[in-house]
Amino acid sequence: MTLLAGRRTGTVDHGGSLERARALFPGAPEPFVDLSTGINPNSYPLFELPATALSRLPEPGRARDLAAVAATAYGAPSAANVVPAPGTQILLPRIASLVRPGRAFVLGPTYQEHARAAAIAGHQVAEVRSFERLAEADLAVVVNPNNPDGRVVSRADLLGLAEKLRAKGGLLVVDEAFMDVGPQAQSLAGDVEQGGLVVLRSFGKFYGLAGIRLGFALAHPDIAGRLEEELGPWSVAVPSLEYGVKALSDADWQREMRTTLAHAAHRLDQAFARAGVIVTGGTSLFRHVDIPDAAGLFKALGREGILVRSFADRPTQLRCGLPGTEIEWRRLDIALGDWAQDRQPVGEGAVS
Amino acid sequence: MTLLAGRRTGTVDHGGSLERARALFPGAPEPFVDLSTGINPNSYPLFELPATALSRLPEPGRARDLAAVAATAYGAPSAANVVPAPGTQILLPRIASLVRPGRAFVLGPTYQEHARAAAIAGHQVAEVRSFERLAEADLAVVVNPNNPDGRVVSRADLLGLAEKLRAKGGLLVVDEAFMDVGPQAQSLAGDVEQGGLVVLRSFGKFYGLAGIRLGFALAHPDIAGRLEEELGPWSVAVPSLEYGVKALSDADWQREMRTTLAHAAHRLDQAFARAGVIVTGGTSLFRHVDIPDAAGLFKALGREGILVRSFADRPTQLRCGLPGTEIEWRRLDIALGDWAQDRQPVGEGAVS
Repeated sequence: MTLLAGRRTGTVDHGGSLERARALFPGAPEPFVDLSTGINPNSYPLFELPATALSRLPEPGRARDLAAVAATAYGAPSAANVVPAPGTQILLPRIASLVRPGRAFVLGPTYQEHARAAAIAGHQVAEVRSFERLAEADLAVVVNPNNPDGRVVSRADLLGLAEKLRAKGGLLVVDEAFMDVGPQAQSLAGDVEQGGLVVLRSFGKFYGLAGIRLGFALAHPDIAGRLEEELGPWSVAVPSLEYGVKALSDADWQREMRTTLAHAAHRLDQAFARAGVIVTGGTSLFRHVDIPDAAGLFKALGREGILVRSFADRPTQLRCGLPGTEIEWRRLDIALGDWAQDRQPVGEGAVS
Repeated sequence: MTLLAGRRTGTVDHGGSLERARALFPGAPEPFVDLSTGINPNSYPLFELPATALSRLPEPGRARDLAAVAATAYGAPSAANVVPAPGTQILLPRIASLVRPGRAFVLGPTYQEHARAAAIAGHQVAEVRSFERLAEADLAVVVNPNNPDGRVVSRADLLGLAEKLRAKGGLLVVDEAFMDVGPQAQSLAGDVEQGGLVVLRSFGKFYGLAGIRLGFALAHPDIAGRLEEELGPWSVAVPSLEYGVKALSDADWQREMRTTLAHAAHRLDQAFARAGVIVTGGTSLFRHVDIPDAAGLFKALGREGILVRSFADRPTQLRCGLPGTEIEWRRLDIALGDWAQDRQPVGEGAVS
């Protein structure tokens, strides 16, 4: 058999693996403080599931309930615009396959799975640094707010780009994985009815439930229908349906959590500032720093059992998620303080 | 945007929806006895999940653990041949897309999602009744044992077919969704290393955990790698990983459950026989009947709150799963008895 087109792409580190952390820092004190992801450490409250949650097939009607609740929560025109999926990740190659193989431009640096998915779909992929260049693509991808630096592209600019792409049969993908804590007014969730546009929303990050695998594509009903056919029936597990329906309906929790996370992000910036590091961006779920000695800081924290995210191709950058407990905050404070003290140039710190 | 090739296919009834049952039989006594699926009513024992099961991303290493355990349980050569997925359903269009659009033949009548998936992948799809005709296809699909009639194709015949298809760049898909209760010696799980062959195994049916969405493709590592790339990282939720690792390792439970299910299937055949219905096939997870008055039996059972599976295109056939409790067995016995009594020709039953 000859395997059809689609390039082999290899795997990518995304953080979030304690296994990898232990391999990198074998002598570090356990438990690890895992700040290598942008997942909310304050999970949505767990609740009892129906007795049949694991045994019965998902009810088709429950997936429709979830689509309706998600449409309201995210501001999509209707449930017909919403495709629930077992995480947005599994949708990426399917979305990239909606347009004929051509040029895919990803506004970078950003989450690397978009480039990988576009390559699987047969596109010639390039990461571009200029927003304007995206209009030259057949498939353009913008993560908004961006991961890891938090850069936000305005809704007006994105709508202009979508119109240009649509006019030539192209597609704009806006990954709003972190828009729950971003500037809601810049979301394109309400604009998907016009076509030529797919918006992605993640469930696990803001709700702190990454293990259940749930995400959504928002799109014109023709695109949504096509993606649903690819997923087939029962793509979302029953526990995920139940958590999705409850948490996405819970506007009070969402409002309070945005405030909680904003405070935590501010506290994290202060912790870095005390160590002489100025946070240069991010969202309320992760912060981004760009310093010459990022590699040294990564290692110093790792040896203390604190895992942040480094980037193989950008050695001066780090991403740091939010500690979840006072013990974790304290371990981070101490490790940052020790690193700051150790890095003082020889002589400078010698006052006696 | 012009949506690329791939036919819109509509939805298919598969049983298992209480919502649909209530719409069909609004006056029926609740709770429904749902015998419309082939899902084991004796679920694998539930257990406590790790505290982080819902909050953290799945560990890549845990998916590898699951692949290794599944390789042993199913008899695949190694973990490199195993692709864990959130249900086999989501894999079907991806597998059908491994071969260039051509002729897809599905040995039928059978589970209808295979034809739908092949159509999505751009194939010209036909359901064929003769096993020999499958060799003319580019993509051939055999469900083994078959759903709903339990027909088994021998491993020798399937290997011969796979060789013919492989020689011309085609692909054989063998869906062993019910092989856990089928003749293990006819499984092709151990033969996937030769290529041109994908074997599907379902987790939720035999282990009675359909709600968690877990299934596997077994294939040559080149094909397995390609499918894994399409799924991307974290495609299987943490609870599904944990149940998969534990249940697939539990050979004692598997052995005892095969015996339990064989007894239950025999008991179900006897219940039908008492009502004058001869069961004509199936597996230990569902039984298949073919009688002129199948529609009448479907309705008579439905009105008593007992849902079996009917087939729009085969009005004489029904599929019936296993009752899970003595109360369910008793309700089925009574409903079958009442139906048998009511259908006696006028006069025949009048003895006084």
